[in-house]
Amino acid sequence: MKFGVVAFPSKKLQDVANSYRKRYDPHYELITPHMTLKDAFEVEETQIKDMVKNLAEIVKRHKPFQLHATRVSTFSPLTNTLYFKIEPNPEILSLHEDLHKDFYGNQPKYSYVPHVTIAQKMSDSEHADIFGQLKMVGINHEETIDRIHLLYQLEDGSWTVYDTFRLPGDDQ
Amino acid sequence: MKFGVVAFPSKKLQDVANSYRKRYDPHYELITPHMTLKDAFEVEETQIKDMVKNLAEIVKRHKPFQLHATRVSTFSPLTNTLYFKIEPNPEILSLHEDLHKDFYGNQPKYSYVPHVTIAQKMSDSEHADIFGQLKMVGINHEETIDRIHLLYQLEDGSWTVYDTFRLPGDDQ
Repeated sequence: MKFGVVAFPSKKLQDVANSYRKRYDPHYELITPHMTLKDAFEVEETQIKDMVKNLAEIVKRHKPFQLHATRVSTFSPLTNTLYFKIEPNPEILSLHEDLHKDFYGNQPKYSYVPHVTIAQKMSDSEHADIFGQLKMVGINHEETIDRIHLLYQLEDGSWTVYDTFRLPGDDQ
Repeated sequence: MKFGVVAFPSKKLQDVANSYRKRYDPHYELITPHMTLKDAFEVEETQIKDMVKNLAEIVKRHKPFQLHATRVSTFSPLTNTLYFKIEPNPEILSLHEDLHKDFYGNQPKYSYVPHVTIAQKMSDSEHADIFGQLKMVGINHEETIDRIHLLYQLEDGSWTVYDTFRLPGDDQ
């Protein structure tokens, strides 16, 4: 089964992201707006319990983090993907690193750019056009993320939450 | 904000449900296949933390339950909705009852019929046709549910998981 780890931002940011995704992201139907912390990784049915325990141990070592979306950016020329750039900070980077060290799945192919995707799989001209528009509108949203989610993928490509892990904070 | 409480069945049952939902359920895109334990209820932003604590306390009093999907049934003539009937058992019924006693939201309008929706909002003739087909195919699937999810609804109608609650079992 294919699993992934994400943070879902608050309703407010998700609603803004969806207002774009609805039109510009063919994955709109498959998952609500999210910041990926670990891309899809394969786990055998028999190993799921172990993996979840392992993940719980990893998450325990981390704290809630600030998610600060500061601008609209693009992965072009790599892919025609637009996203809300999330400012990297030590908490996000160390959580991402820990999820790729002595844990399931492959090492990331590219250096980690925390983001929430708002548009993808556009033609070059559409990408240029929409990027121009959305860059002007921009984004500035900050919130605290105190939980992350483990998801698995269904055969139709959609993602279901398997479990939620709290990032241990002061109020627990 | 609108919240709801559901159980997500295993990938296996969700895949079967989606093979029907894809064609016959206009809510297909809004949420993955689920068994509703508590319908949408409104909670003020300021009350969310209290509500979640309250919910955690309720869940602690309950045990993992058997989800046994035994046949395809319909809510007709009330609505043209087809579903996998989940056999009610004392664990499911007491969890449902507890989620509607001294907790947020309204009392249920109808007596509780545990189910996973696979088709809805069809015309009378389509409903009769599809029900005839799916009743023949039937379903027989049993699994243990050891966690439930608290979701909130986005402006576009889709649902995001806010938190996951484990039903306390022997292995914890």
